[in-house]
Amino acid sequence: MILDICLSPALYPFYKKENDTVIVVDIFRACTTICTAFANGASAIIPVADIEEAKQYKSQGYLVGAERNTQKCDFADFGNSPFDYTQEKVKGKEIVFTTTNGTYAIEQSHGCKTLLIGAFSNIDALAKTCIKIGGRIVVICAGWNNRINIEDTLFGGAFAEKLSNENPIKLDSDAVKIALELWQSAKQDALSYIKDAEHYQRLIDNRAEGDASFCLQHNTVNLVPYYDKIDKKLKIY
Amino acid sequence: MILDICLSPALYPFYKKENDTVIVVDIFRACTTICTAFANGASAIIPVADIEEAKQYKSQGYLVGAERNTQKCDFADFGNSPFDYTQEKVKGKEIVFTTTNGTYAIEQSHGCKTLLIGAFSNIDALAKTCIKIGGRIVVICAGWNNRINIEDTLFGGAFAEKLSNENPIKLDSDAVKIALELWQSAKQDALSYIKDAEHYQRLIDNRAEGDASFCLQHNTVNLVPYYDKIDKKLKIY
Repeated sequence: MILDICLSPALYPFYKKENDTVIVVDIFRACTTICTAFANGASAIIPVADIEEAKQYKSQGYLVGAERNTQKCDFADFGNSPFDYTQEKVKGKEIVFTTTNGTYAIEQSHGCKTLLIGAFSNIDALAKTCIKIGGRIVVICAGWNNRINIEDTLFGGAFAEKLSNENPIKLDSDAVKIALELWQSAKQDALSYIKDAEHYQRLIDNRAEGDASFCLQHNTVNLVPYYDKIDKKLKIY
Repeated sequence: MILDICLSPALYPFYKKENDTVIVVDIFRACTTICTAFANGASAIIPVADIEEAKQYKSQGYLVGAERNTQKCDFADFGNSPFDYTQEKVKGKEIVFTTTNGTYAIEQSHGCKTLLIGAFSNIDALAKTCIKIGGRIVVICAGWNNRINIEDTLFGGAFAEKLSNENPIKLDSDAVKIALELWQSAKQDALSYIKDAEHYQRLIDNRAEGDASFCLQHNTVNLVPYYDKIDKKLKIY
C-alpha cells in the first residue's frame, strides 16, 4: 500500500498515476460539511464547481449549498458551515454544493479510479476503506485558490500516521513526509496550532470560529462519501 | 518586509504579486553549484532550460554544464556537481548551464522584478541583499519535476528564521509557516534529516553523496547571483 499527498490541486498532474484512489480533503470546511450532511441523512450531494450551474439547479427546485470566499451566496439555501446542514433540512434530500476550493478540487480529480471525501470527521472510516481498497492512495489538499494551507496538510499527516499504525505503507514522496512531520508538531493541540493558519483567520473574520473547532474533531461520523462517476453525485458507502 | 515561499515552480502563478523579488532555490544541486562556480571566478552563467539550446552554445565554443536526472549529459563539459566547477576550469569564463529543475525554475520566474539565486552556500549574503531590497520576497523551490521536495522547503524555513532574527518580517502564507516548522525539526542535524528525502537517495544512487553534505553547508561563499534581464545571464553583485 502506497500513500502520497498532493498539497495543491494544481500539482496533481505531477503526482497522478494510473489507478490512484484519490481522497479530496478540504478541512475548512467543504469536506467536513459533506460528511455532516450525509450523517444527517442527505441522500446525495451533487458537487458543482460553478456558481451559474448551482443557480440553474436552484431554479429547478433543488436545495443548494453555495459559498464563495467564506460567505454564503445570497441565492443559496445553505453556506459552507457544517451546522447549516441539520437533519430537519437535509434528511432524504439531494443537495447541490459549490464552494471556493473543495468542489474545484473534486472537479480536478475526476480522472482518478476512485474518489473519496476525507476529513478529520471521518478519518477512521476512511482509513478502513483505504486499507480495503489498497494500491496507491493520494490525498489531494484543496488548499485555497491553489495555494497550500496548513489544515489540509495536517490532515494528510494525520492520515499517514493512522495508516502507518495499522498497515505497512510506503510514503511515496517528500510531500507526505513533510505533512507527517507537521502533524507530529501539531497533534498535541491541533486547534492552538491551527490558529496561525490563514483560513482560521478568515473563519474568525466571518464569525465561524465554532466551525473551525468542529472541523478538527475526529470521527464525528462513521461514513465515507465517494464520487459516483455515472450519476455525477457524491454518495456514501 | 514580507516573505513568502512557493513550494513548486508550478504554483508560482498563485503566489505571484507585482514587484516581487524572487529567490530561486535548488539546493541539490543547481543553485549551490552556481554559487560555487561564481566563487571560483566564473564571469557569468547563461541559464538555459533546453538541452538543444545548450548543445548549440557548445558548438559555438562555450563551456557547458548540463545535467538531466542527476547525471551529466554526454556532450557537456560539466555535470551538476559543485566540485566540477574548479577555479582552473571556470575562472574568467562564461558558462552555459542547464539542469533538470533549477534552470526550469529560473525560466518560470523571469517575470519578477528581481531574480536572485539562493542556497545554504550563500544564505547570509542573500539575507543581507534581501534586507537591502525590502518589499516582498518569494522563495521559489525548484523541487523535482514540479513536485515538492524536502531540501528546498528546508532552505525556505532556514531563510525565514534568518530574516526573522534580523528584521521584523511578515510571513505571508501558510506555506512559509510550514517551511519554518520543518526547519525547526531539522536544523540540529540537517544532514541526518535529509537522508529521508527522495533526492538524497538519487544522489546516493549516482555516487554524489559528498555533494549532498557540501550543499547543506552554510556560507561557503559570500556572493549573490542575480539574473540580468538584458544580457539574459546570471551575474554577481
